[in-house]
Amino acid sequence: MTALLTDQYELTMLSAALKDGTAGRGCVFEVFARRLPTGRRYGVVAGTGRLVDLVQDFRFTGPEVGHLYESGVVDEETATWLGDYRFTGDIDGYAEGELYFPGSPILTVSGTFAECVLLETLILSVLNHDAAIAAAAARMVTAARGRAVIEMGSRRTHEEAAVAAARAAYLAGFEYTSNLAAGHRYGIPTAGTAAHAFTLLHDDEPAAFASQVAALGKETTLLVDTYDITQGIRNAIAVAGPELRAIRLDSGDLSVLAQQSRDLLNSLGATETKIIVSGDLDEYAIAALAAEPVDMYGAGTAVVVGSGAPTAGLVYKLVEVDGRPVVKRSENKATVGGRKTAIRRHKPTGTATEEIVVSQGVPDHRLGDRLLQRSYLVAGEPAPLPTLVESRAHLRQCLISIPWEGLKLSAGDPAIPVTVVPAT
Amino acid sequence: MTALLTDQYELTMLSAALKDGTAGRGCVFEVFARRLPTGRRYGVVAGTGRLVDLVQDFRFTGPEVGHLYESGVVDEETATWLGDYRFTGDIDGYAEGELYFPGSPILTVSGTFAECVLLETLILSVLNHDAAIAAAAARMVTAARGRAVIEMGSRRTHEEAAVAAARAAYLAGFEYTSNLAAGHRYGIPTAGTAAHAFTLLHDDEPAAFASQVAALGKETTLLVDTYDITQGIRNAIAVAGPELRAIRLDSGDLSVLAQQSRDLLNSLGATETKIIVSGDLDEYAIAALAAEPVDMYGAGTAVVVGSGAPTAGLVYKLVEVDGRPVVKRSENKATVGGRKTAIRRHKPTGTATEEIVVSQGVPDHRLGDRLLQRSYLVAGEPAPLPTLVESRAHLRQCLISIPWEGLKLSAGDPAIPVTVVPAT
Repeated sequence: MTALLTDQYELTMLSAALKDGTAGRGCVFEVFARRLPTGRRYGVVAGTGRLVDLVQDFRFTGPEVGHLYESGVVDEETATWLGDYRFTGDIDGYAEGELYFPGSPILTVSGTFAECVLLETLILSVLNHDAAIAAAAARMVTAARGRAVIEMGSRRTHEEAAVAAARAAYLAGFEYTSNLAAGHRYGIPTAGTAAHAFTLLHDDEPAAFASQVAALGKETTLLVDTYDITQGIRNAIAVAGPELRAIRLDSGDLSVLAQQSRDLLNSLGATETKIIVSGDLDEYAIAALAAEPVDMYGAGTAVVVGSGAPTAGLVYKLVEVDGRPVVKRSENKATVGGRKTAIRRHKPTGTATEEIVVSQGVPDHRLGDRLLQRSYLVAGEPAPLPTLVESRAHLRQCLISIPWEGLKLSAGDPAIPVTVVPAT
Repeated sequence: MTALLTDQYELTMLSAALKDGTAGRGCVFEVFARRLPTGRRYGVVAGTGRLVDLVQDFRFTGPEVGHLYESGVVDEETATWLGDYRFTGDIDGYAEGELYFPGSPILTVSGTFAECVLLETLILSVLNHDAAIAAAAARMVTAARGRAVIEMGSRRTHEEAAVAAARAAYLAGFEYTSNLAAGHRYGIPTAGTAAHAFTLLHDDEPAAFASQVAALGKETTLLVDTYDITQGIRNAIAVAGPELRAIRLDSGDLSVLAQQSRDLLNSLGATETKIIVSGDLDEYAIAALAAEPVDMYGAGTAVVVGSGAPTAGLVYKLVEVDGRPVVKRSENKATVGGRKTAIRRHKPTGTATEEIVVSQGVPDHRLGDRLLQRSYLVAGEPAPLPTLVESRAHLRQCLISIPWEGLKLSAGDPAIPVTVVPAT
């Protein structure tokens, strides 16, 4: 981690603000989405759990400061300031796993202008990436209707983004990831058995299956579509017996093949052998397999690229300076100034009805309302955080709480409206 | 960098292959695209320049091996093997900045099965990400018709992916990046001045502009659309004088605003002041501004997410075992086995006409043919590589060499065909 993961303009603004004396003004920046990706009905807050550590580690080393000074990006005063930098302000925001909608103030960063402005790029990178993956993954989990989903998309995205993507998918309800670094860093259950290359390496398919079963036991998954699927399934059961845990299909018309494979497995006595399908599955392809005898889905490309929405469109805007609301005035980008407080309102049944966001004040509280913000950092020190497993459970609860239309895969409006009440 | 940036199944395959004696078989894996993203006419090889270092650093530390063993992913024999692992095989491939088409064998990895299979995830992550960005960026550079483009999308993608994206965009012909880590790591020119927050921080716009000019000089760029653009431009020239280097417009109907801004600047005597535009620009929006008085483009979201194609769809396939071609047979995924050699054929004028790919042999060589593969690693040791600036120049040349239809932004077929000749 390096504080160079930032945009140059954060440092030129800092430089000018240090010179003119405004760097120490008390500021509030807010992260929010002006809109959801086209047709999406909710967003998922994701990445805040790993952001806290990144903000604390956000320091400029001596050589980095030297590089910035020598390349003329910053002057001497700013260079000295950067060498001592650490964030000592407050960060509040929606819990990881919380849903958000256009206008939800999902993260609030307060402190001096200088210390807050430097975090813009890092905060947006983490949240825009992780929220995009989590929202796509949550839709896939809904589409899977209780069947397990494995994240296996590491090879389709940047090598480090892959680890964060695995974490976001797990947050959203995936059961496993293929990514070993995600298993190591975040304790996410990992899975994975064999690729077509393993079959091709061997003299024939039975030899490959026998080798895999010898090494991994009958609790393994045999990939049966390297040559001919029918023969592949016969070979699999001949080698492993009907106790084989699972077969995987990675190509072809999966809805036809799943049924044929189930029938064949049953006829071979392998009635308990599971069927795992993979191969360019997105939420729509998963939904289309709902009636087929599929036991588990493997999702790759679509989840790690956000299934059509690879970035969440979150912005980081200055909303308050020394207690005074500020706002940019440009067409289509008007926002409400001032620090916001947000609650979500619910029916007595628990169904969410709307979000109320108040600028520079506190919303009237009714029965069923839930305050949406919590502390992440207080004076630069981390507040206690829920575990990833707890955040995962929180998201599951949130998805249950929205009106049922909100879970439809088809394009539609946000599941609940957000009313932003300006300062009076 | 950690060798845990991989999929679990690479290790389970390794484990089984070590047990059955096939781990040492001589293998050739190839990276290629079955198709280009819908409507795209070429792909751009990108990431190979940073891949070489990553492959050399791809080692498992003691604690990582311990974690894999304790969590049951690998057995003791495999754990010991992983502790000693380093890649000692060969990697050949297309030069960075080379164009590719469906079927082009862009990277060839040879060695034992064990050492090659472990690299699949890393290689595909790097190439799928960087090639996706480079291809989108190259289309934007074409659309900009010689005007400079700045990459400013770091906040829209994962924090580390942002650095690789900046590198890929520079490879593709962008002039600058806002990402400081990319400047530091790869020597890419960086740029960036101020955001709307800087104006909002100050008591009024003239105060903000005066501060910026005091700190950065008249060679800076003033962002004039925080409140009213006409007044913003008047304020900018009043503060900085007509020697101001540039203004930036980040919102509104840029084609109308660019002309109005140019007229106003001229009327204020600021005839040399440049106009930089930004705000959700993709290759089509850039092309639409061709006739307007714009001097430079800032591209953010669209470039870092590949402008509709966030991953390149490259695959890593075993094509040869102990000198014998191997191939998976499944519908729609048939490929030709055997190690490939590729040449690109050109007219005497220098225009590329086709790519010839021969399995297990060497293509007939004619005048104007160019061999497309080069060494990256020989017996695990790096071969001399071109610099990033040289690769950038190579891509520019390659784009000049394809038939003119290949540079059209509209959807179409690959710019040249690839003929794959099976082993005879």
